[in-house]
Amino acid sequence: MHGNGSLSFVLVGMFVPAIKGQGTDEQHQKWLPLAYKMEIIGCYAQTELGHGSNVQGLETTATFDPQTDEFVIHSPTLTSSKWWPGGLGKASTHAVVYARLITDGQDHGVNGFIVQLRSLEDHSPHPGITIGDIGMKFGNGAYNTMDNGVLRFEHVRIPRNQMLMRVSQVTREGKYVQSNVPRQLLYGTMVYVRQTIVADASCALSRAVCIATRYSAVRRQFGSKNGGPETQVIDYKTQQNRLFPLLASAYAFRFVGEWLKWLYTDVTQRLQANDFSTLPEAHACTAGLKSLTTTATADGIEECRKLCGGHGYLCSSGLPELFAVYVPACTYEGDNIVLLLQVARFLMKTVSQLGYGNMPVGTTTYMGRAEQLMQCHCGVQKAEDWLNPSAILEAFEARAIRMSVACAQNLSKFTNQEEGFAELAADLVEAAVAHCQLIVVSKFIEKLQQDIPGKGVKPILEILCHIYALHLVHKHLGDFVSTGCITAKQASLANEQLRSLYSQVRPNAIALVDAYNYTDHYLGSVLGRYDGNVYPKLYEEAWKDPLNDSVVPDGYHEYIRPLLKQQLRNARL
Amino acid sequence: MHGNGSLSFVLVGMFVPAIKGQGTDEQHQKWLPLAYKMEIIGCYAQTELGHGSNVQGLETTATFDPQTDEFVIHSPTLTSSKWWPGGLGKASTHAVVYARLITDGQDHGVNGFIVQLRSLEDHSPHPGITIGDIGMKFGNGAYNTMDNGVLRFEHVRIPRNQMLMRVSQVTREGKYVQSNVPRQLLYGTMVYVRQTIVADASCALSRAVCIATRYSAVRRQFGSKNGGPETQVIDYKTQQNRLFPLLASAYAFRFVGEWLKWLYTDVTQRLQANDFSTLPEAHACTAGLKSLTTTATADGIEECRKLCGGHGYLCSSGLPELFAVYVPACTYEGDNIVLLLQVARFLMKTVSQLGYGNMPVGTTTYMGRAEQLMQCHCGVQKAEDWLNPSAILEAFEARAIRMSVACAQNLSKFTNQEEGFAELAADLVEAAVAHCQLIVVSKFIEKLQQDIPGKGVKPILEILCHIYALHLVHKHLGDFVSTGCITAKQASLANEQLRSLYSQVRPNAIALVDAYNYTDHYLGSVLGRYDGNVYPKLYEEAWKDPLNDSVVPDGYHEYIRPLLKQQLRNARL
Repeated sequence: MHGNGSLSFVLVGMFVPAIKGQGTDEQHQKWLPLAYKMEIIGCYAQTELGHGSNVQGLETTATFDPQTDEFVIHSPTLTSSKWWPGGLGKASTHAVVYARLITDGQDHGVNGFIVQLRSLEDHSPHPGITIGDIGMKFGNGAYNTMDNGVLRFEHVRIPRNQMLMRVSQVTREGKYVQSNVPRQLLYGTMVYVRQTIVADASCALSRAVCIATRYSAVRRQFGSKNGGPETQVIDYKTQQNRLFPLLASAYAFRFVGEWLKWLYTDVTQRLQANDFSTLPEAHACTAGLKSLTTTATADGIEECRKLCGGHGYLCSSGLPELFAVYVPACTYEGDNIVLLLQVARFLMKTVSQLGYGNMPVGTTTYMGRAEQLMQCHCGVQKAEDWLNPSAILEAFEARAIRMSVACAQNLSKFTNQEEGFAELAADLVEAAVAHCQLIVVSKFIEKLQQDIPGKGVKPILEILCHIYALHLVHKHLGDFVSTGCITAKQASLANEQLRSLYSQVRPNAIALVDAYNYTDHYLGSVLGRYDGNVYPKLYEEAWKDPLNDSVVPDGYHEYIRPLLKQQLRNARL
Repeated sequence: MHGNGSLSFVLVGMFVPAIKGQGTDEQHQKWLPLAYKMEIIGCYAQTELGHGSNVQGLETTATFDPQTDEFVIHSPTLTSSKWWPGGLGKASTHAVVYARLITDGQDHGVNGFIVQLRSLEDHSPHPGITIGDIGMKFGNGAYNTMDNGVLRFEHVRIPRNQMLMRVSQVTREGKYVQSNVPRQLLYGTMVYVRQTIVADASCALSRAVCIATRYSAVRRQFGSKNGGPETQVIDYKTQQNRLFPLLASAYAFRFVGEWLKWLYTDVTQRLQANDFSTLPEAHACTAGLKSLTTTATADGIEECRKLCGGHGYLCSSGLPELFAVYVPACTYEGDNIVLLLQVARFLMKTVSQLGYGNMPVGTTTYMGRAEQLMQCHCGVQKAEDWLNPSAILEAFEARAIRMSVACAQNLSKFTNQEEGFAELAADLVEAAVAHCQLIVVSKFIEKLQQDIPGKGVKPILEILCHIYALHLVHKHLGDFVSTGCITAKQASLANEQLRSLYSQVRPNAIALVDAYNYTDHYLGSVLGRYDGNVYPKLYEEAWKDPLNDSVVPDGYHEYIRPLLKQQLRNARL
């Protein structure tokens, strides 16, 4: 099962998007059909042992040799070894290698090059190429079916036309030329990739939530009255308080993911028309949402595992591997903290331009109403007032802008802005989170302003929307109260409303996870079975373990018996 | 390495403590020497497929047969199968089995029985006993070296004298008698076991922190000026803001663990003198600290893994397995949420008795000053004021009592107290957390009021103590501000002080983790090496992976080549 998945990932990987985004038309015509037809297997070789986030710090070199019209690809240091590319270690025949372009002794920064790594006849590495797998990773199976690789070059020569030359070129004479293709186009690819990650987050979280919700309805513990059955653990408020916000998050991420798909289309169309006006906002938005949703999903999967008690620790629950496979999403395609700092930088820029006639666009439109939002008072007086989408939206907008403005004011006290940014980084990250949470909440609310087919579907989604928003109010209460967006009394009313919402969602909880329509095979979880037949299947599953092939275990005579019979000198312990 | 560890765990397990705690003198003399000398291997068989937290709901039966003077041990349902006991699946020859005692048709609840499971001659299971391993668990290695087992009984007979009869007995005639040994004694064992778990938490967290701190000093990314080296990631405030509170927590848990050891001795001495007055408080305190420290440690290990970026995902970082091995601590010996509810119940009882002349004792002494703490105002006016231990202590005490009192007031609105407790469970858990955090903070402060040998040691520990307290103020800002314990301005000053503390701890960070004195062998982490020689060793480690034994991978001819050569019909994909 994993084998197919990872091989198709190797095929698609980032090799094809890289050539698509940065290659010439000639390269598109030559390489993409080969990759699509699997006549070559390509991987995307960017990250090195010493550099991940700081792409501009990569050390691999591609030095142009005008005598032979070739680039010489070389790994000058140990830390320049390519490290992590998926599918590189054992499968790939080709790679898009990112390396510092050097012409005539001058360093032009990082560019992409297509390099053949292995023979298409016998799969042996080409001369000068050292290639291998980087070893075991987190989890039991999981990402270990992916041959993340290490790669070193010893003066490997490739023809000049294997440099990806859409944005910058090297001429036959070795002259470095920048094309008139706008560099912003590269951001389009990033928006695309991160948008798919948000959709994946919703998918992974909903799998975990589906398992934990179903099992919470099957599992009973305590509370038996007069010999009757015990209480289903899903009926405990402590369980609901941990589970239902995750259920709501899975739906919230799905809707914001759908919206991001639209955003990508919009950005692409604008780029084609040379309109770059919305690109910085779209880039910040996707970077922030990638960070927000992957962090919440990784934490959420592990929380779902804990919600299944001891049995969640068994591989047959499906949750340990789901977690181990998912967590890299917090690191790859931009470390989540680094991404939030990028968002914060964009927010600080937006704040600094307020009042200069630049109206913020897209997801930052609310910042244009800064003056009003700095002053507003939440009007909630009773618990039900929190069901008003405007009240929710205003509280999230006010919190976000007030945190951004507070950061901007603190930054302005520093004479050196970069030093200030470094010193206040932790606060800036929190301001970015507040902004991103507002986006998710507002897109959920927007979704519910549209028609939604199916009788009774919209009201239950509204409940989830309120749970999503109000659990965030509670979780980040310090933000909301200390910025004066809401009072302690209003916070307590939000909590009260949240408890009532949990009771309302409870009767529909199973339907809401059944709605994902995951097959038992796909879920891969004994605890999350559609038919709820958990205990007999758990029992059955245990006996399939190879340890149970024999009643007296292998090693009894060698280890256990000598121990029991006090023949310790002979025992190998 | 793991093998030895788990086998000694099997030996000690809970088998010996169970007999020690609940067995008769005769049983102590007969069974403990055998277990200590490893002439038998014993495990503690309590948890069943259907019951973990609710011990009183266990279904295995032990029915007395007066005709033969035996108990008949039986598994009447599928869910009564013993499930999870460590060392049960393959190694154990004996078990302390918890089962419902039935005499003359009457159910006397759960008691312990010593049952031989396997022959001491050939290790084959005794007649009527079905025994096996429950299958793969989280992680790659890790707990999979432990044979957590499943066990079923089909009317298995044992002599009457194999019931643990310290607290209750069955006579030859089949009469059930309660001894005059106080049942509270059983709590002594629980206090002991949970105290060791707190000490283990400090140990596990400090391992992870040691790895992440050392690697954060080795790893450099961004910020190169004029071609100089890049910035060590430990110098980024975002890294410090995540790492240093964990470093402080590891020390905090160590000190509170040491204090718990004293508490256990104190409780034991009092029990021997038939003084049970401090037992409920000691029990709540250890339950709460077990929950608090294991949750923080599990989350902290995973945070340390993320702090190591992509390389933290490699098994050679040591962190994935540390996490997978550690997380069960959040579930075993009392699910962490269930334990916090027990603490909350104790707090509500204490609050309800305030003003009736019952002065709260031990860690609840502050509750005796409820009136004052409900009124007090934090006196912090500038950032340095937060360095005053009294200011910190008062803020934590005020927060804890105000949350408890608020819960008690909300509870009093319910006519049915149990319904109220269930409805407000999430708030009660938070009040319990506030109480437990106060304990850790206050024990850290108390530690620093003593002499501490070593020049400059105390000042740096004071910094850690402040970091521990102030990061909690920030993390739980909603609690502190919404209960009026501190103002938004004071919260902002706490943050400011925290940043300054991070800068102060930075030069000593490596010394503070070196102080644990862990060997490289024990740490088992390439990233956490004492000599900092990370990259060459990471590279070296990769090549040891068996996948690298051949340059062209196994399966090339079977899978990859047919794919590349378009012989897909023959490929087995």
